[in-house]
Amino acid sequence: MKTRNLTLMTDLYELTMMQGYFKNMDRNETVIFDAFYRNNPMESGYAICAGLAQVIEYVENLHFDNDEITYLKGLGIFEDDFLEYLQNFKFSGSIYAIPEGSIMFPREPMIKVIAPIMEAQLIETAILNIINHQSLIATKTSRVCYAARGDGIMEFGLRRAQGPDAGIYGARAAMIGGCIGTSNVLAGQMFDVPVKGTHAHSWIMSFPDEYTAFKVYADMYPGACILLVDTYDTLKSGVPNAIRVFTEMREAGIPLTFYGIRLDSGDLAYLSKKARKMLDEAGFPDAVISASNDLDEYLIDSLKAQGCKVTSWGVGTHMITSKNWPSFGGVYKLAAIMDENGNFIPKIKLSENSEKITNPGNKVIHRIYEKESGKIKADLIALEDEVFDENEPLLLFDPLEPWKKTLLEPGTYTMRELMVPVFLDGKCVYTSPSVMEIREYCQKELDTLWDETRRLVNPHQVYVDLSSKLYHIKIQLLDQMGQVH
Amino acid sequence: MKTRNLTLMTDLYELTMMQGYFKNMDRNETVIFDAFYRNNPMESGYAICAGLAQVIEYVENLHFDNDEITYLKGLGIFEDDFLEYLQNFKFSGSIYAIPEGSIMFPREPMIKVIAPIMEAQLIETAILNIINHQSLIATKTSRVCYAARGDGIMEFGLRRAQGPDAGIYGARAAMIGGCIGTSNVLAGQMFDVPVKGTHAHSWIMSFPDEYTAFKVYADMYPGACILLVDTYDTLKSGVPNAIRVFTEMREAGIPLTFYGIRLDSGDLAYLSKKARKMLDEAGFPDAVISASNDLDEYLIDSLKAQGCKVTSWGVGTHMITSKNWPSFGGVYKLAAIMDENGNFIPKIKLSENSEKITNPGNKVIHRIYEKESGKIKADLIALEDEVFDENEPLLLFDPLEPWKKTLLEPGTYTMRELMVPVFLDGKCVYTSPSVMEIREYCQKELDTLWDETRRLVNPHQVYVDLSSKLYHIKIQLLDQMGQVH
Repeated sequence: MKTRNLTLMTDLYELTMMQGYFKNMDRNETVIFDAFYRNNPMESGYAICAGLAQVIEYVENLHFDNDEITYLKGLGIFEDDFLEYLQNFKFSGSIYAIPEGSIMFPREPMIKVIAPIMEAQLIETAILNIINHQSLIATKTSRVCYAARGDGIMEFGLRRAQGPDAGIYGARAAMIGGCIGTSNVLAGQMFDVPVKGTHAHSWIMSFPDEYTAFKVYADMYPGACILLVDTYDTLKSGVPNAIRVFTEMREAGIPLTFYGIRLDSGDLAYLSKKARKMLDEAGFPDAVISASNDLDEYLIDSLKAQGCKVTSWGVGTHMITSKNWPSFGGVYKLAAIMDENGNFIPKIKLSENSEKITNPGNKVIHRIYEKESGKIKADLIALEDEVFDENEPLLLFDPLEPWKKTLLEPGTYTMRELMVPVFLDGKCVYTSPSVMEIREYCQKELDTLWDETRRLVNPHQVYVDLSSKLYHIKIQLLDQMGQVH
Repeated sequence: MKTRNLTLMTDLYELTMMQGYFKNMDRNETVIFDAFYRNNPMESGYAICAGLAQVIEYVENLHFDNDEITYLKGLGIFEDDFLEYLQNFKFSGSIYAIPEGSIMFPREPMIKVIAPIMEAQLIETAILNIINHQSLIATKTSRVCYAARGDGIMEFGLRRAQGPDAGIYGARAAMIGGCIGTSNVLAGQMFDVPVKGTHAHSWIMSFPDEYTAFKVYADMYPGACILLVDTYDTLKSGVPNAIRVFTEMREAGIPLTFYGIRLDSGDLAYLSKKARKMLDEAGFPDAVISASNDLDEYLIDSLKAQGCKVTSWGVGTHMITSKNWPSFGGVYKLAAIMDENGNFIPKIKLSENSEKITNPGNKVIHRIYEKESGKIKADLIALEDEVFDENEPLLLFDPLEPWKKTLLEPGTYTMRELMVPVFLDGKCVYTSPSVMEIREYCQKELDTLWDETRRLVNPHQVYVDLSSKLYHIKIQLLDQMGQVH
């Protein structure tokens, strides 16, 4: 599949504003925009960053062809000199980002764009679209995997995804979040990830009887033979017919390497226990019991708690649409404008809601780990020019409740910076790892969370603190802009 | 944007089943699959069909290139003769469908595929993906428009959509469902629909003050001058500065054709009433008040009921993701298999849940209207070879409660068939109307619903009946397959 030209995949107001800046070129200052989110999705304790590879593709491929220029001209609101500028448009700025698969927390810049305002504005919509979608699905998937307690989760949602890309890139994000495979063949091809699947009810129904359908399937795919047992009657017909076929395979000397059954309806706790007993008694203790049917993290968690014997899960609609929380609230806000001397002047967006007030300036994120456990202690948002030393004590305080303070002694903590350079002056300087590498990295990232932060319900929220310097700049700006209501 | 090759956008099991049928060619019978859904989304009284144009594009473009074959070969589960078959694959079947923009109800085939089983199986996943997504968003949008009572709704959701396609085709579906425009420029280009938008908070923040930002914008876009007034303080700064700019425009003799303000935060009922009063008193009674900020059909309905003065609405996240109901439950089920004499043998899928039992056979849908009002009386699912005559009395009965009967006298009703041929023997015989034409058709379709079916909460559910012949075939099949539990 060729890279699509998504240059026009932007809100019209980005282009009308661009023309506004173009016509007032003294307003095309270099600026800093931060993409960040305000609350963890699904009332989770964290989120997983995903989609950067597609952001890179998009930015590298940004260009206005004749088709785009002709279309914009036809709208009657853009002037020729601006359209000529667009014809030669190329992104010339710098982008820093948290790598894919990383754990992130609210109010941290996941992407920082430093560019002339016309360029920074154009790319807002697509960056948010891509990052919001994939981070949502990766986060959701990590929760489903957590609920499954080590069982494999397969992504089966393509038919219910919100369009082709939601299926394709949703599968990508689900792999990053922890799935062991997807049913989506195109995602398998594009991202080199394992594809999985067996047969549908229609396969069974197109044969005169269930046994024959199983038998023909087993003859074709003896090495990956998972039989769907609920077309007629799971325990009276499906499981006995599956056992008959497995028995015949064994008698014929066909090695039973990966085989078992799939349940797709009914009470999965009850049916799996009964089926497990039947399979065990027939001498097939290593037969896999897999299940699908409108599963999510809460249902899987409950089934596991009930002693359900399913060990392999196909999860569709709930994961590919993040059904109980189908949007990720990433926003893109102006943080600083460069003055004529090349200094960034911090900018802040007021709001009556304190949580919505932005963090000004050119920022970086430091992650602080407890040295002993390697678990995350807190994140510290600081200004780019601040220097920290692990050999010094570190004083943290909560920016919303600044009287809450924690002092970290040297030797008890380690810290590292989260964002990496992705584009520098228009040139891509970052090579995305493969999806399976990102998946592995994400597993390691999840290990840095305390169990209290991973749990599905009412998790502990990790502290995201501001450096003292950043905090004081913020307070000063608020004082300057504050109006009496 | 070129058509993408989505041939591999299918579940792996479609391909493993295809190879299964290929290796047992006596099993490549011609079959009928129905795509239908079981329950209206969002507890609505209806759904709107959308996505057919993309299904057609997909089917016409189905082909396995070398890249696809090489990838499939590498999976190690497909044999050379099957891969050779795929290399020459072309869809040879027939497809019938309810046209886009149509009202539809549960259990009605929205798409009927008649094809050799290998072909019918391959296209299942993509058809469902496309139709489920666009029908979901079109239905959601029609509800948002209904709540707005004639006010214009603009689609502003791209940045929160589930990936690029969800933004692009979601905008398409939103236009079909009733939006007057979208912020998504690419959707505007691809589907020739109106694009809308003005400026963001960052525009205001990049100027030394709000007035200057408004002034520069108004100078550039006097003909579509909607000013965002909530960056600093809506009533104390934003609205007064907007009035100052409008006054200057009037004094300068600039015609104020389409102008006004946008509210993007705060209490929209309160702020819009205050702003309306200020604009009216300043002599701008025709200034538009538009609003955005996490709106959905329930919130708009409530604001309208409160006498809110907003008359133009930008709706984002809730509409583009159908946030409270983010998936449409379309399924694709085997309905019949052709025997050696060319007759279709009806097939039925059992389920312990009566609602999940499928309707067998080669079916059509007749829509029955009350002659006097033109409103929908009921739908009748019948077999393809049944003939009905409007000049005869028509007896309807509920298939779930067959003792409930209605007799329609001749002259009191009209009827028409819903599905149209789209592909016949592999050849496309249908030309999709433009999106704006589909939108207009959809408005007419919505007019055939009683208000009781359109209302947002607890709507009247339209009857979907079975013909007597179809009902008896179904009962007979259930009797044949019924097992004692």
